[in-house]
Amino acid sequence: MRTWLWNILEDNTTRKGRIFDNIIQGLIMLSLIGFAVETLPDLSDQARHFLYNFELFCVVVFTIEYVLRIYVAKKPLKYIFSFYGIVDLLAILPFYLSTTLDLRALRSFRILRLFRAFKLVRYNKALKRFHVAAHLVKEEIVLFFIITLILIYLTSAGIYFFENEAQPDSFASIFHSFWWAIVTLTTVGYGDVFPVTIGGKIFTFFVLIIGVGIVTVPAGLVASALSRAREIEEHKDEGKQTSDTKK
Amino acid sequence: MRTWLWNILEDNTTRKGRIFDNIIQGLIMLSLIGFAVETLPDLSDQARHFLYNFELFCVVVFTIEYVLRIYVAKKPLKYIFSFYGIVDLLAILPFYLSTTLDLRALRSFRILRLFRAFKLVRYNKALKRFHVAAHLVKEEIVLFFIITLILIYLTSAGIYFFENEAQPDSFASIFHSFWWAIVTLTTVGYGDVFPVTIGGKIFTFFVLIIGVGIVTVPAGLVASALSRAREIEEHKDEGKQTSDTKK
Amino acid sequence: MRTWLWNILEDNTTRKGRIFDNIIQGLIMLSLIGFAVETLPDLSDQARHFLYNFELFCVVVFTIEYVLRIYVAKKPLKYIFSFYGIVDLLAILPFYLSTTLDLRALRSFRILRLFRAFKLVRYNKALKRFHVAAHLVKEEIVLFFIITLILIYLTSAGIYFFENEAQPDSFASIFHSFWWAIVTLTTVGYGDVFPVTIGGKIFTFFVLIIGVGIVTVPAGLVASALSRAREIEEHKDEGKQTSDTKK
Amino acid sequence: MRTWLWNILEDNTTRKGRIFDNIIQGLIMLSLIGFAVETLPDLSDQARHFLYNFELFCVVVFTIEYVLRIYVAKKPLKYIFSFYGIVDLLAILPFYLSTTLDLRALRSFRILRLFRAFKLVRYNKALKRFHVAAHLVKEEIVLFFIITLILIYLTSAGIYFFENEAQPDSFASIFHSFWWAIVTLTTVGYGDVFPVTIGGKIFTFFVLIIGVGIVTVPAGLVASALSRAREIEEHKDEGKQTSDTKK
Repeated sequence: MRTWLWNILEDNTTRKGRIFDNIIQGLIMLSLIGFAVETLPDLSDQARHFLYNFELFCVVVFTIEYVLRIYVAKKPLKYIFSFYGIVDLLAILPFYLSTTLDLRALRSFRILRLFRAFKLVRYNKALKRFHVAAHLVKEEIVLFFIITLILIYLTSAGIYFFENEAQPDSFASIFHSFWWAIVTLTTVGYGDVFPVTIGGKIFTFFVLIIGVGIVTVPAGLVASALSRAREIEEHKDEGKQTSDTKK
Repeated sequence: MRTWLWNILEDNTTRKGRIFDNIIQGLIMLSLIGFAVETLPDLSDQARHFLYNFELFCVVVFTIEYVLRIYVAKKPLKYIFSFYGIVDLLAILPFYLSTTLDLRALRSFRILRLFRAFKLVRYNKALKRFHVAAHLVKEEIVLFFIITLILIYLTSAGIYFFENEAQPDSFASIFHSFWWAIVTLTTVGYGDVFPVTIGGKIFTFFVLIIGVGIVTVPAGLVASALSRAREIEEHKDEGKQTSDTKK
Repeated sequence: MRTWLWNILEDNTTRKGRIFDNIIQGLIMLSLIGFAVETLPDLSDQARHFLYNFELFCVVVFTIEYVLRIYVAKKPLKYIFSFYGIVDLLAILPFYLSTTLDLRALRSFRILRLFRAFKLVRYNKALKRFHVAAHLVKEEIVLFFIITLILIYLTSAGIYFFENEAQPDSFASIFHSFWWAIVTLTTVGYGDVFPVTIGGKIFTFFVLIIGVGIVTVPAGLVASALSRAREIEEHKDEGKQTSDTKK
Repeated sequence: MRTWLWNILEDNTTRKGRIFDNIIQGLIMLSLIGFAVETLPDLSDQARHFLYNFELFCVVVFTIEYVLRIYVAKKPLKYIFSFYGIVDLLAILPFYLSTTLDLRALRSFRILRLFRAFKLVRYNKALKRFHVAAHLVKEEIVLFFIITLILIYLTSAGIYFFENEAQPDSFASIFHSFWWAIVTLTTVGYGDVFPVTIGGKIFTFFVLIIGVGIVTVPAGLVASALSRAREIEEHKDEGKQTSDTKK
């Protein structure tokens, strides 16, 4: 019985497992759309009622799924405290918590329900290669993350000294300048804050020439690491085939 | 006769085939320019008349080409339902449909004529290497596409909770927030919507540090896959030369 | 005499050649700065006079250099009609042309003087590796250039149909929409034009998800081709060393 | 004694060295946060007093550290004039200079205190691989830096001629146009300056198609060089293991 359930829940190589996965994935997506629809202004009471009932149905299904996953796990505690175990719990917990509290509070708690989106990721085989790549460039990513933070700090402090006097509202302190720094270094450039003094513009000129490249390097690192991960995979497959031939 | 036509239509290694290709490509480009010119406001009746006649000429040529392609194809049905077969049909169909309907409706149908641009792609040899590269990174692209969609959903839901109260028009619902999320994560940053609350700005800060990299990874993946495709091609060529030498 | 001049002008491995190169490069940079200073509003007559004299001096030096380069060249005509020969001529020609014409016309002709900046590139050895890389990815760059143009066309035509009615000034025709398309697809996003209709925003959403990646691929292609060019260079060097050892 | 101190200060493989490093790093981060907090408007006198005392404490600790580093260094002069020696000095010097001068001047000098952030970088092992990568692509980065500068110059001069008449304030001279050029080529696009004439828009169209790719190439170069540096490292490790096995 437990093995039969395990095959459905955790093994996505069998037909039953795949059907179960597809149903759960479909339900997650529908509940995410439902959640987004709920935030629309001017919804009719009828629509709100339907969405509440659908939400109830989703929570019941996800709760049963969560309990069964604990039941079939060889080490239940390990599952409960794993990343996906916590995500699975957070996807249903807000609903139960909110019923014991004021209904208004429910809305603020429901932000946690967003974690349900992470469950979509769970079922994807292709993530394995991504994990290999992440392991390859972990150190570089951390290094560039630190360099990016230092760059944001230096840029914010620099622009503060140049622009504080001219624009005391937008560049009120170094903390306020962080907003400008991140929007500029990631090249989003909303245009709500930008330097107006000559000094601030020259400073920004040099920041952009040097900084923009640094912030976009990690994306390139991940891309080349994924290529490398694929090569490693191919070599392993070749290795297997060679040893198979030898036998 | 059919073989002779096939050589002209489908074989671009012969001189006749190349001339035919160049004429068709030129006509496609002229018809695209004509289509753009037609949308200009304040056109004279004379110009409109000329453009209509040119359009008529293009449609006649493309129709003859389409019929001939079906005639020379070994498996006509396979061609008709192939990607290029459908594009070829969509490039001429709106014209015939619109003549049997009200002339106003013609304008909305003509948007389909844009598919004609895809025909330009058809004649390009270099696309082969691109197909190899696409095959290499298909899974990663799909994975990053899903991650991007999850990221947009989470970002939209998050900013909705932070900014809805302060800017009820721009962030009216999670669906409205999608617009902000895509414009921000792709670093376009028009500046028509941006967070104004402290919470929303801090949230955006973290979204930008993590999210921008994720959205730009696929471009790097395609670039490195194209390099890999070129290497595979070179190895094959070397392999051929080696086996040629052996003979 | 001619060989001695050739050594100075064209050979940057000798000490005299390097000194000559540095002087010319410095003069080019000074004349570029002078050109920029000249455009400043509210310049004193004295400053204008000095800049004119300095310009005169630069043109004389560059003219002598141009004549000498023709003199020392083994095939003078080949040099004159080479890329750098034309740039060298365009860098001095506007000055001579303008003196025979009205002084006002001089300003519009001087835009050609900008080509002088290209001369800076001439003296850089490191460009060789870049040429190898350019040869490697020429086809892919051309392909992506065509795809980018098709994408801009389709995007412009699409947004025209969605936004023309709502914003008849910004999206007056497909040609007007090109401006929005290029600013959006390169993620510059000035914010002077952006879609306001629901249809236009949803269309832009899909354009951004697919299009932004395509436009940024060529940069990645060039980067990986330059890596490949370096590897090829290293292999050649190793090959040389191996054959040297054999001797 | 000196060896014992050296182990703590310069050797981060021992337990004591790591503890010392962590304390110094923590203090640097706290002093950076303190510096940012100090710039907040409307701080109470009490908070200002506390921040001043904390700053005093930091400077004392960093001064002792600096003196000890000179003491334990084998070649004290080499350390003093090394990059990190200068950064270490600049991190404490402004404090001493400001006390002997007017207090207002202190603020302008404190901008130098930002260099303290660079110290964070010092302690990071992972930087080694980065240095290898930097060595690999040094020439390409310099080349692309020069090309970027030429591109900015040509773009600024070009847009000046197109837009100067229509927008004499934003495009007052080529120098003023530099601001537009850098904001556009790095795709930040604040939207404070953008071309409005047809000529300027067409010019920008071509600049964006060609220029944006060039500016983003260096990031890709660094990413692929870091991959290459990792490969070189792996080969060396394999080499070591092979020679170890032979012994």
